[in-house]
Parts: sequence; C-alpha cells; structure tokens
Amino acid sequence: MSKFWSPLVEKLTPYVPGEQPKMANLVKLNTNENPFGPSPKVIEAITAELGDNLRLYPDPEGEALKGTIAQYYSVEKEQIFLGNGSDEVLAHIFYGLFQHGEPVLYPDITYSFYPVYCGLYNIEGKTVPLTDSFEINPEDYRQPNGGIIFPNPNAPTGCYLALDKVEAIVAANPDRVVVVDEAYVDFGGESAIGLVGKYPNLLVCQTLSKARSLAGLRVGFAVGSAELIEALNRVKNSFNSYPLDRLALAGARAAFEDDDWFRATCEGVIGEREWVASRLEELGFEVLPSKANFIFARHPEHTGEALAKGLREQGVIVRHFNKPRISDFLRITTGTADQNKRLIECLEALV
Amino acid sequence: MSKFWSPLVEKLTPYVPGEQPKMANLVKLNTNENPFGPSPKVIEAITAELGDNLRLYPDPEGEALKGTIAQYYSVEKEQIFLGNGSDEVLAHIFYGLFQHGEPVLYPDITYSFYPVYCGLYNIEGKTVPLTDSFEINPEDYRQPNGGIIFPNPNAPTGCYLALDKVEAIVAANPDRVVVVDEAYVDFGGESAIGLVGKYPNLLVCQTLSKARSLAGLRVGFAVGSAELIEALNRVKNSFNSYPLDRLALAGARAAFEDDDWFRATCEGVIGEREWVASRLEELGFEVLPSKANFIFARHPEHTGEALAKGLREQGVIVRHFNKPRISDFLRITTGTADQNKRLIECLEALV
Repeated sequence: MSKFWSPLVEKLTPYVPGEQPKMANLVKLNTNENPFGPSPKVIEAITAELGDNLRLYPDPEGEALKGTIAQYYSVEKEQIFLGNGSDEVLAHIFYGLFQHGEPVLYPDITYSFYPVYCGLYNIEGKTVPLTDSFEINPEDYRQPNGGIIFPNPNAPTGCYLALDKVEAIVAANPDRVVVVDEAYVDFGGESAIGLVGKYPNLLVCQTLSKARSLAGLRVGFAVGSAELIEALNRVKNSFNSYPLDRLALAGARAAFEDDDWFRATCEGVIGEREWVASRLEELGFEVLPSKANFIFARHPEHTGEALAKGLREQGVIVRHFNKPRISDFLRITTGTADQNKRLIECLEALV
Repeated sequence: MSKFWSPLVEKLTPYVPGEQPKMANLVKLNTNENPFGPSPKVIEAITAELGDNLRLYPDPEGEALKGTIAQYYSVEKEQIFLGNGSDEVLAHIFYGLFQHGEPVLYPDITYSFYPVYCGLYNIEGKTVPLTDSFEINPEDYRQPNGGIIFPNPNAPTGCYLALDKVEAIVAANPDRVVVVDEAYVDFGGESAIGLVGKYPNLLVCQTLSKARSLAGLRVGFAVGSAELIEALNRVKNSFNSYPLDRLALAGARAAFEDDDWFRATCEGVIGEREWVASRLEELGFEVLPSKANFIFARHPEHTGEALAKGLREQGVIVRHFNKPRISDFLRITTGTADQNKRLIECLEALV
C-alpha cells in the first residue's frame, strides 16, 4: 500500500458496474438501461437551458426540481433530497442514517453496492437470506439492526415485495431507518412513497436512470420525513454544495412533467419484458417473476457462465454474477423489440 | 437530535456557498463566476451529445475527457482523476489521502470548505496563519502533519504563491500529500501540474467552474502521480460509479479543445480585474495583489459590513466574511465591463 493513502483505502472493495463496451452493433442488455429514449420535452428543456448560463452555478438546493417532484408525489419539498444519481443518494444515506453500532440489514442477494458503502464507511453489514423462491420475508427483518435497506423490486432478481409486506418491515422497526430502493418500481410495482407520511423512519430512494430513461444525466432522489431529509442535507452540504448541474436539473423536471411519455414507455418495457419471459419459458428457462426492466432466469441444463459466454460470442451482452445461489442465472435487460428478438434467436442456438 | 441520525450528523457544520439570489437585474459579484460565457464549441458539443443517448449511462471512467486533459497538460491519463466539481474531488482527497492521525494543515484564511471536510471525516485540521501581508510562508509548513492543502491563488485573498515556494512546501514534506487547489490559477498564475512528475506527493486540483466558464456544468479534476490517483479512484468507485453525466463530459472536453476562447476570456477577466483594482485604489481602498478572478479589498474608513450592505441596497452583491482578520474586506468578483463600472459608481456613493 502507498504510504500516502489513508489506511482505509487499502481495505476498500469498490463496486464494479456493468461494463460499457465501446464496440458497435452490440445488443447491450447488461446495465438495465431503458430501450426508449427520454421524452422529447427533456431534450427541449435542456436545449433551453444550454447557453451562457452555464457560466453560473446551478441552484445548490435544486428548489425547482424538488417542487416538481414534491407535486408529483403529493409530498412537501422539505421531504425531497436530490443527488447525483441514486448511488450518491445511497452513499449519503449510509453515512448519515446508518451508523448506529449495529449491523445494517440487506438481502443476501441484492444490489452489490450496499456492502461497498458499508466498507467505505466502516459500517457492519449483515445479509438476510432470501427465501428459496428468492423472496424477501418480512419476518426475517425482526432483529436488532442499525438500519435496513432493500430494493423493491429487488435486484438482480426482479422480484417485487407487495406494499403491505414493505409496510410490515417499516412498522416493525420504528427506531431504525428503513430504506426502500425503488430504482425499478415504475415497471409494475407500487411505490412506498405513499407511506412516508405515516412512518417517519421510512425513506424511499428513486432514480431517473431507469423508467425515466436518463441514466446519462445522473439524477436520483429520496423521499421521507423532513427529519431524515435534514440529515442527508447536512451530509451533502458538507461534501459538495452543487451535485446537480443546470442541464440535469432542467432535464429532470421535464421528465416528471411529461407523464404521458413516461407511462407509454413504461408500458412498452413491460410488454417487451413479458414477451421475453414467455419465450424464455418456452426455451426451458426458469424465469423469476419480474416487476423490473430486466429478467433473471436460469436454464436447468446450462450454466450461467456458458450461456453468457455463448451470447457474448454472438454480440449479445447480458450480466452474469459469479456469486453463491445465483451463479447459474442471467440478468437480462429488456431491450427494444428487435434486440429482444435477437436475444431469443441467439439463445435458441445455445439451449 | 433525531434518533435516526448517525451521531456524527449532529456535529456537522456544513459549508455555506455564496447566495444565488433569484432577483432580476442584480449585479452579482459574490460567487466568482466568469463574466464571459463558455466557448460556443462547448454548446455545440453538448448539443451533439443531447438526444436518445441520455438513456445510456456515461463512461464511468470518463476516458475521453481524461485523454483530453492529459494531452493538454502533457501527463498520462492515469494521472487524472475526474469529479463532480472540484468540491467532490476535494472531498475524496480528504477521505482517501489525509487520514494519518496528524493534523491536516491549511492557512487560517482560506477556502472555508476545508474545515468542513475535516468535520465530515473526523480529521483534525490545523490552521497556519498567513503573514501580516496575507501571504503563505513555506517555512510555516515545516511541522508534523497528515497532509497539506492550500489554494493557489489563495481564496478569498487572491494572493498568488510563486511556484518555487509551492515547490519548497512539496519538497519539505515528502511523506505527506500536498494538495494545491488551483481553482483560480488561470487568471495569471502558473500551475504546479508541471511538477507532478517530479514529486509523487504532489496533487493539483482544478475546476472548470472559473476560467472555463462552466460553473453550471460541475466538472473538476486532480492531477498527480498514478499512486495518488489510484486512491481517489478507489474512493470514488466505492461512492458513485458515474459522477459525471454525458453532457458534462462532452462539454468539458470541448472547453479544453477551444484554447483560443479560453485564453481570450482569461485575458478579458484579467484586464477588467486590473481596471477595478486601479479604481478601488483611487477610492482609497487597500487592494491585495490578486491573480484570481476576484479582488479582496478593504477601506480604512468603512467597515466591510457597511460597504457590503450599502452595495446591496444599490443592487450589487459582493461577498463579505464576518471572520477574524478579514471582516473589513470585501471579496469582489470581476464582472463584465458594465458590471464593474456599476460597482465603482456604487462605491463612489459610499466612500
């Protein structure tokens, strides 16, 4: 280790995002991007903001965007926290709300950034196994903890936890913050944002990278009681005053304002997802029930590694996690109709 | 304090950026923004990037932008770290390079975010007084430390430390990282980037918010030995994989590629700064020698508070720090020719 590094740097195990290959003509189904582009009104709004004004700092508090999101979800502006993608929001959550000397709970199969945050901030993490059918069981979250976090739908399984079960976890842990990471909720799930008024310990995190087709713009947010949001604001304002640039703020507002585009593209993704799921089942895959914009599936006669490799050789990139319990699964992003057909054709040649 | 907050949140003292008032027709000389807009080629490059591609994640490593900056400064790509504004870069520096159990040294009068980072990461900070003429004396940095950081030119004084004196500090502390925060260096100073090949403990931090007129886009970077950059990459990749969005990456590259615009606008700012300095001296102000895009000045017969208030009443906003040693100074951003004339007219009415 370098003598210049803080001692903790040596111990970090950074998150590894899905690769962003620079080859042309790839069918890229590995990072859960939306097959549809953002609303044309997003492009218009960014174009309108694009000019000499870039010499000026953005609003550090993003008041206009907070107002738009607050109105959209019928909450107060003071209940909204904005960040540079939901990953930054999650980092501030771990730092500002999870350091209580007891382990933070999350599923054994889940978003692999959670243990990375624990490592970054020296927080103990404790995995809670999913059931044999890869579901979250609320009863398993009745144990001492320093906070709870899980995605809903879960990643990379795509499995959705019904809202009454989410509420059961929140209600059973009134002294700890429960974070529901809803990156994929708009593809068929119901948001827990409607519960934040009832539970001061509930924090819901969302992103504009998935259902709102803006992975390239880096905007995430959290919704919760003003008490929780205040902690995040204190951390953010001790870290970086201006995490969202002028163009991101303008584009994000427009994305919320064009609800027709949002609903139509979400329905388009859901329709394609169901088509892919049916075809996969016809090919003999076991397909977990997904409410996300991806499918998690395994084949009884082929390893995940072999299938991922075989797809890659045909120019189709999916994600494969070489981890316990899920090493035979593929996580397949729902692409355009053409991409999905190509995926199925390539799999037909393999299974 | 809320029972939900991590204990450290209560102790945080967040940074307070200069206000961004929303009133029209203000002469806003309080946040050191560039009076000139960004290069038209920046706008073109962002426009070219603006479209359906926003549905896709940006390159998490920003390789293309790193390549452009590396070529510009004749260093290797592996010597560049990118961040969401230099404030984020600085935060990762404090976390990844300054935790050695000894105090981090910085001037008593300096960028007020440094002690905030110390508070965020529980690092002891130790202020080193500037001389009576508000200069950094390299001899004062020969003492045990866990790292050293100072802006050059310093903020809010604008005073520039000659490169041989910067080098003296770096050379005297071979076992500790010395960070030169060059947010304002392009307005008449010489960058220490030319020294990074010679000193593995030297890290130079810059921003595109000032001389490159892109405060609204949020791009900062650091240049140093690959050993130092690796620590920052580990921290960044444990925090947020994609801190720079597609539009920021594209715009930042174009800003470095249009060197004519950059040089012309820097010269324009320098010319205006010198004009303002002369007029202030004619009005009886003591003006510290500035190599930044702002001026730090006090009047022997008027308090800083009274002058800032008097200017504000006339629609001119400058920054006033109610702190020891500098409470009678005004920090005045160099504006457009019209803004600067208006500033001087308003001051003529006050002194």
